[in-house]
Amino acid sequence: MYEEVRDFYLSRGFGGRVGFGERPALVVIDMAKSWLDTSSLLGSTNVQGVMTAILDVLKDARAARIPIFFTTMAFEAADMASPYAKKLMFVQKGALTAGTDMVELDPRLEQRVDEPLIVKQRASAFWGTNFDAHLVARKIDTLIITGCSTSGCIRGTAESAHNLNLHTIVVREAVGDRSSLAHEANLTDIDMRYGDVVSKNEVAGYLGKLKR
Amino acid sequence: MYEEVRDFYLSRGFGGRVGFGERPALVVIDMAKSWLDTSSLLGSTNVQGVMTAILDVLKDARAARIPIFFTTMAFEAADMASPYAKKLMFVQKGALTAGTDMVELDPRLEQRVDEPLIVKQRASAFWGTNFDAHLVARKIDTLIITGCSTSGCIRGTAESAHNLNLHTIVVREAVGDRSSLAHEANLTDIDMRYGDVVSKNEVAGYLGKLKR
Amino acid sequence: MYEEVRDFYLSRGFGGRVGFGERPALVVIDMAKSWLDTSSLLGSTNVQGVMTAILDVLKDARAARIPIFFTTMAFEAADMASPYAKKLMFVQKGALTAGTDMVELDPRLEQRVDEPLIVKQRASAFWGTNFDAHLVARKIDTLIITGCSTSGCIRGTAESAHNLNLHTIVVREAVGDRSSLAHEANLTDIDMRYGDVVSKNEVAGYLGKLKR
Amino acid sequence: MYEEVRDFYLSRGFGGRVGFGERPALVVIDMAKSWLDTSSLLGSTNVQGVMTAILDVLKDARAARIPIFFTTMAFEAADMASPYAKKLMFVQKGALTAGTDMVELDPRLEQRVDEPLIVKQRASAFWGTNFDAHLVARKIDTLIITGCSTSGCIRGTAESAHNLNLHTIVVREAVGDRSSLAHEANLTDIDMRYGDVVSKNEVAGYLGKLKR
Repeated sequence: MYEEVRDFYLSRGFGGRVGFGERPALVVIDMAKSWLDTSSLLGSTNVQGVMTAILDVLKDARAARIPIFFTTMAFEAADMASPYAKKLMFVQKGALTAGTDMVELDPRLEQRVDEPLIVKQRASAFWGTNFDAHLVARKIDTLIITGCSTSGCIRGTAESAHNLNLHTIVVREAVGDRSSLAHEANLTDIDMRYGDVVSKNEVAGYLGKLKR
Repeated sequence: MYEEVRDFYLSRGFGGRVGFGERPALVVIDMAKSWLDTSSLLGSTNVQGVMTAILDVLKDARAARIPIFFTTMAFEAADMASPYAKKLMFVQKGALTAGTDMVELDPRLEQRVDEPLIVKQRASAFWGTNFDAHLVARKIDTLIITGCSTSGCIRGTAESAHNLNLHTIVVREAVGDRSSLAHEANLTDIDMRYGDVVSKNEVAGYLGKLKR
Repeated sequence: MYEEVRDFYLSRGFGGRVGFGERPALVVIDMAKSWLDTSSLLGSTNVQGVMTAILDVLKDARAARIPIFFTTMAFEAADMASPYAKKLMFVQKGALTAGTDMVELDPRLEQRVDEPLIVKQRASAFWGTNFDAHLVARKIDTLIITGCSTSGCIRGTAESAHNLNLHTIVVREAVGDRSSLAHEANLTDIDMRYGDVVSKNEVAGYLGKLKR
Repeated sequence: MYEEVRDFYLSRGFGGRVGFGERPALVVIDMAKSWLDTSSLLGSTNVQGVMTAILDVLKDARAARIPIFFTTMAFEAADMASPYAKKLMFVQKGALTAGTDMVELDPRLEQRVDEPLIVKQRASAFWGTNFDAHLVARKIDTLIITGCSTSGCIRGTAESAHNLNLHTIVVREAVGDRSSLAHEANLTDIDMRYGDVVSKNEVAGYLGKLKR
């Protein structure tokens, strides 16, 4: 139903195609226990479902030898009384407390030593972190985004990447949200405003042709 | 229909109430000709419709003597070849070119000399600007957000304000979007993730009780 | 000798007095083992010497019940190949490697649970961190800066605080540098450009009069 | 005399050589009337003296067809009551008021339409601007810095560029300061901490070999 937003926004000069650049990096957003364990407050089977696609993209990215980054979120006791934590009550309820296993990456990702983990406290992987400097150090012009949640950290990270003039790519099958309705609405907004939403196959084709 | 997203997100620890703080500022986002003139690419009658509510909030804010800010967007020729402008084709099509009347504030806002205009190039009023420093100079802890568009600059500004730990308030009747569907979906996401979406009357009541 | 710079800059409209605001916070910059242990590459007896003054300011700040922050620096293996680490070779030489005791705060500081530790990777405590959001959450308008090194992290943090329109205060006896010449030159530059350089006694007097 | 700082800092793991990268841009900082007109508060003959070297670097950069940026500073009435302007009194005294000829670039620079002007309000060209996004859009990995003043905007810009992992290059003969003592001290600090300070001839040699 949200497709009418796409049509209208396209007619108003939004939703151009940015395309891939020459030097991509992959980021896997927040595939940690808190979002994957369906017994936890933030957990969702929807997010579980995107893991297969993420593992496929990861495999292609490693084969193409492009830089890979992971993120998670972790909060300290001193963060709990802020306006931020009043809005996002799950912070106060301990769903992402630093030092607990809730903030640890899913072992299926098999993070390697040269694949940095960005520990963030905001939706965007760029806010309050040195992620921009990591990308500049590696001369990256294209950011391929996977993980969760579409309506929060995926959209926030895509908006920041777009703001920085990166070629911003969101992999449709490799992002998820606990609400499928929020997922669809936000994928459309992202595609109209911030980054190209493309299929896993298109990313695989692009990565396969890279010479490094 | 998007209300099911609200219910689900509330059950998962999102959507807490932040409330008003002690020292508010008002920002009016992008109420310039390009968004208001229905003959322009970006223009919309929906946005026209929120002007009355914005003028009411402005009147209350001036009566309460709180700091007031306006924003607009303006792009130079050198910005036109970027990934940013490829996605947002209206930039390349001249809808927001610096020096044209398209970027000028609507005269009904009656901007005063002590009400700064923030000229931005990104959705968020905080990205690539000194808006944060303006707020710190005035010891602001609460940002009341009005203007357009809900799915773009309102949401982007609300997310940044929330990231900075401001009490983030979005005035329901005083924000608009060219798509009413995108408006509703994004108001819900904002309310769940970034700021309290409140009525114009509630803001009026708060401003009326301020002692300055 | 660097005093001629002060006189000249004062005559050219620099070096105004900002003064204290109403809601201060204290930050203690980088008083960790790597800077204090004179057997380490970064270590200096000069920095050892400022610990007494820092402990005095800390005691006054705790008595006045103002927010207190500490910083340290820590780098991962993935940071070692960057332009940043080529310039600052001590990073590559392991002087600030995450997980080693080199990055741990000096125990004499007796950090408390409500006194956050900001782990940074740049000179300024604001760069790549959420320090700004921590200050906004606590409605801070004044930042009192202590620690080391005057020509690096103290100056960088003072410049950022000034940029954000905080009342920026550097405590003369409570900041140090491995080079006393660099210390004097940079204290003068800070006083002319970024923050008021004041005595420990003046800070004590200010904190003693706060009502909280 | 400040050379002893260099020697000491070199012995402590600072002052590595970053070298040039593959895709440079040139920035000319604040060569506007306010700094060049010796009858103005900020004006200095020292800065006049570096214009010849800047014009030489500009000529080489244009011949090599690399991206070129200029900066100036401009303040509005609403900026005048801030802590920032209390420290930098020349702001309040009108030395850099928006709309006056004081903020205009020196005509000898012959700015071209594809050479953006970044209007900033802070020492660093990166603070409160989209300069980072301009550089990312052009896939820049190396920033060559010229202009004034060494102890303020040159050092601030070099520190930010270094923080972002750009190869940061400061051209010795093409930067100046109203105080030659501050110039020397800050050039040394920059060379030890933030960017390579190199000769105009070395830059000319590098630019001459670029293939574009």
